[in-house]
Amino acid sequence: MNCQIVNATIITLNAKNEIIENGEIHIKDGIIQYVGESGPAFAADKMMDANRNVVMPGFVNTHTHITMNLLRSYADDMNLKDWLDKKILPAEDKFNDEISYWGALHALCEMAKNGTVALNDMYFYCNGIARAIEQSGHRAVISRGTVDPDPQTGERTFNDALQIYKKYNNVERIRVYMGPHAQYTASNGLLLKIAQTAKELKTGIHMHISETKREHEQCVREHGKTPIALAESLGLLDVPFLAAHCVYATEGDMELLKEKGAAVLSCPQSNLKLASGIAPILAMMEKGVLVSLGTDGAASNNNLSMWEEMTYASLLQKGTTLNPEAVPAMQALRLATQNGAKALGINSGSLEAGKNADLIIVDTGDIRYIPNYSVVSNIVYAGSDRDVLLTMVGGDILYEDGRVTFADEDEVKERVREIAEKIKT
Amino acid sequence: MNCQIVNATIITLNAKNEIIENGEIHIKDGIIQYVGESGPAFAADKMMDANRNVVMPGFVNTHTHITMNLLRSYADDMNLKDWLDKKILPAEDKFNDEISYWGALHALCEMAKNGTVALNDMYFYCNGIARAIEQSGHRAVISRGTVDPDPQTGERTFNDALQIYKKYNNVERIRVYMGPHAQYTASNGLLLKIAQTAKELKTGIHMHISETKREHEQCVREHGKTPIALAESLGLLDVPFLAAHCVYATEGDMELLKEKGAAVLSCPQSNLKLASGIAPILAMMEKGVLVSLGTDGAASNNNLSMWEEMTYASLLQKGTTLNPEAVPAMQALRLATQNGAKALGINSGSLEAGKNADLIIVDTGDIRYIPNYSVVSNIVYAGSDRDVLLTMVGGDILYEDGRVTFADEDEVKERVREIAEKIKT
Repeated sequence: MNCQIVNATIITLNAKNEIIENGEIHIKDGIIQYVGESGPAFAADKMMDANRNVVMPGFVNTHTHITMNLLRSYADDMNLKDWLDKKILPAEDKFNDEISYWGALHALCEMAKNGTVALNDMYFYCNGIARAIEQSGHRAVISRGTVDPDPQTGERTFNDALQIYKKYNNVERIRVYMGPHAQYTASNGLLLKIAQTAKELKTGIHMHISETKREHEQCVREHGKTPIALAESLGLLDVPFLAAHCVYATEGDMELLKEKGAAVLSCPQSNLKLASGIAPILAMMEKGVLVSLGTDGAASNNNLSMWEEMTYASLLQKGTTLNPEAVPAMQALRLATQNGAKALGINSGSLEAGKNADLIIVDTGDIRYIPNYSVVSNIVYAGSDRDVLLTMVGGDILYEDGRVTFADEDEVKERVREIAEKIKT
Repeated sequence: MNCQIVNATIITLNAKNEIIENGEIHIKDGIIQYVGESGPAFAADKMMDANRNVVMPGFVNTHTHITMNLLRSYADDMNLKDWLDKKILPAEDKFNDEISYWGALHALCEMAKNGTVALNDMYFYCNGIARAIEQSGHRAVISRGTVDPDPQTGERTFNDALQIYKKYNNVERIRVYMGPHAQYTASNGLLLKIAQTAKELKTGIHMHISETKREHEQCVREHGKTPIALAESLGLLDVPFLAAHCVYATEGDMELLKEKGAAVLSCPQSNLKLASGIAPILAMMEKGVLVSLGTDGAASNNNLSMWEEMTYASLLQKGTTLNPEAVPAMQALRLATQNGAKALGINSGSLEAGKNADLIIVDTGDIRYIPNYSVVSNIVYAGSDRDVLLTMVGGDILYEDGRVTFADEDEVKERVREIAEKIKT
C-alpha cells in the first residue's frame, strides 16, 4: 500500500536535526520514499492529513517484560525480598502461555496507544508473547529469561530459549535473542554456553546487568570483576549485547561497552522505583556508548510510557550533574527513539528515504503545547503519551482515531481483569 | 446549590485512609455534608454519576508562577545566566497587566483540566493574575515578588505588594501573602521590613529559599548562617511561612522549619530541570516538617501537572535513599493534595463532612488503570492528568466534559499565541 502524509510538522531526527514545517511523507510498501516540503508525484492509495500536527519517529522501548502488565499495581512500595517472594513469584507461578498472551496483548495495546513501535522483551511463556506480537505487528526482539538456580532449571530454561529461537526468529517482525537473566541468577557455566550459542546462531544477547549496588558488590567480591567485566570475559559481549540498566557501571565498564559496541538499555523510572539508583548515562554517552531507554515491566514503573522515560532521562542527568545543559530535549528524544532502533538493529529511528515507516502523529493542539517556541521542548518537557493520534509500523497502522487496530481493547481489558482475579494471592 | 455525587470510588484521604467503593458525596453551598456508602435523604439540585470512577481531593500546587505559561518552551536546556539575561528578563520586560492576565488565564485553564483546585503564586503584574483567578474560581494565595537590587526598586516592589494586599486579600478565593523573592535578591533590611509588615497585616510569607548550592554557600559565607537560619533570625518564620524549594536544607534548617510550623514547597521537576538538585523531603518529613508540592513555572517544568510532581516526589526519594518503601503511593498523593491544603491554610485536602468541596473525578477506565489491585498505586504510578474528568472548587465546577467553564479555551490559546509572537526576542 502507498500512503502519503501531508500538512505535517516533521521532526526528522536526521543528521541535521531538520524540522520541516508543512511537509509531506511518501511511504511505499512500508518504506519511506520521500520526506520534505513538497515531493515528486506519488500515487497514494491513502492520503493522511496531519493537520499541522507533528510526525516523528515512533518510540523504541528497549527493556520491558510486557506480560507483567498483569501485575501492575500488585506490589508497590515494597522491599525486594517481599516483592519477589510474597507477591511476584507466587503470581507468576500461575502463569501459562494463554495468560501470557493476554498480558502481552494488553501491553501491546498500551504501547500502540502511547506511540511505541518496537520493543525488546525478556520473560518466560514466550509462545504467548510471540503470538501477541505477531498479532499486533510491533517490531520486537524477544528472549527467554534463562537461569540456573539448579542444573535442571538451567537445562530447561536454556532448551526453552532454543525452542523459542527456532520457532520465532524472523517470524513477522520478531527476532529472538538469548536472554541470560542476570549474573547473579546464571552461573558462569551457563553464561559461557549462552555466549557460544549466540555466536553459533549469529544472534544477540539481552541481559540485566549492573542493576543494583548489591549485585555489583557481590560480583566484585566473588569474581574480582564487575558484572560487565565478567560478562565480557565470558564472551557475552562478542555478539550484539543489550545491557539492561547499568546503574553501577564503572568507567572501565563504559570503556568495555563502547569497545564492544554494546547498547545500554536505561530504565530511569524503574531504577528509581525499585530503589536501585540513577544510571550515569551522561558519562556513558560522553564516552561514546550507545544509550537507549526502556520502561521495564509494569510491576516496576507502572506504565509503558516512553514519554515519561525520556523526560526522566533528561531531568535526572541535569539534576545529578548540576548541569542544566545536560541531555537537551533533542537528545532526549533521540534516546527514546533513534538510539533504541540502533540498539535493536532496526532500520528506523529517523524519517528519511529508505527507512522503515515506523512513525507516530502527535496532536500538538493541547494547551500544554502553547506557546510553541520549540516543538521538541514541548514534546519532551510538557507533552504526554495521550497526545499520540496515530502509530504506524512498517506502513501498517496499529493505532488510529482512539482505537488499536489489532485487537478489541475492551475484550483485552476484560480478560486481564479476569486473570488478575485468578492470579492474586 | 446542592449537589450529590453517586456511584463513586472515593479516596477520602481521611485519617483512616478509607477508600469507599460505590459511595456517595453530598455537597451543600460548597461544603461537603456527607461521604459514605449511603447517606441520609438529600435534596440535590444536581445529581452526578461518577460511573465507578474515582472521586478524590483536588491537587494543590504550592509553588508556581502562572504567568510564566507565556514562556513555556522559550528557554530550555540553558545555563542560568543565559536563561535569565538573554531570554527570560528581556521577555518579562514586555509584560504588563493585560499580558499577565492572559498568561495567568492560560495556566488556570491548564490547571483546571489537570485537576488542580488551589495554587500559591509569586510574580509581578499581580492585577492581571488576580483578575484571572477571580474569573477561574480557583483558591489561591498570591504574592508580589519583592526585591531590592537598589533602594528605589525595593520601595517600588514593596509598595506594590502592599497595594496588591489591600486590593485582593480575601477577594473571592484569593488571599495575599508577602513575597520576598529570595535571600540573594532582597537585603536584610527589606526582609526585616517584610517580616514586620506580615505580622502587622496578620498574613503569611512566600519565599524562594535554599534552592541552589550557590545560594546556600554564598549565604553561609556572607552571613554565617544558612538562608533558612537567616530568614528565621529576621523574623520571617514568625508568620505562616511558605518555603519554596529547600533543596539544600540542613538538619538544623529542618528543625527550624518544624519548630516554626513552616511549610516546604518542593518542586522536584523544576529542581532537576534547572540543575538545582534533589530536595531531601523524606528526611524533612521524618523530622515532622510539613512538605507539599509545586510545579514551579512553565519555563522550568514545563507543564503544571501535579500528577507528575507526585510521581517524581515518590520515585526520587526511593531512588536516592535506596529504599523502595520510601514515600509510598498514599503518601505521595497526600503530598500533592492534603499537605498543600494544610500549607496554604485551606479547609480541604480530604473528603469529609465539613470540608470544602474541592475535588476531582478521575477516569479510571483507561488501560493504564488495569489491572486494579490498588487504585491509589494506579493513580500515582501509572495515571496521567489527562484522566481528570471534572474539577470542582467549593462546589463550583471549573472543568467538565472536556471544557473549562470559566473561559473560552480556544480564545485563550489564540491570545497567548499572539502574545508569544510579541514577547520573543
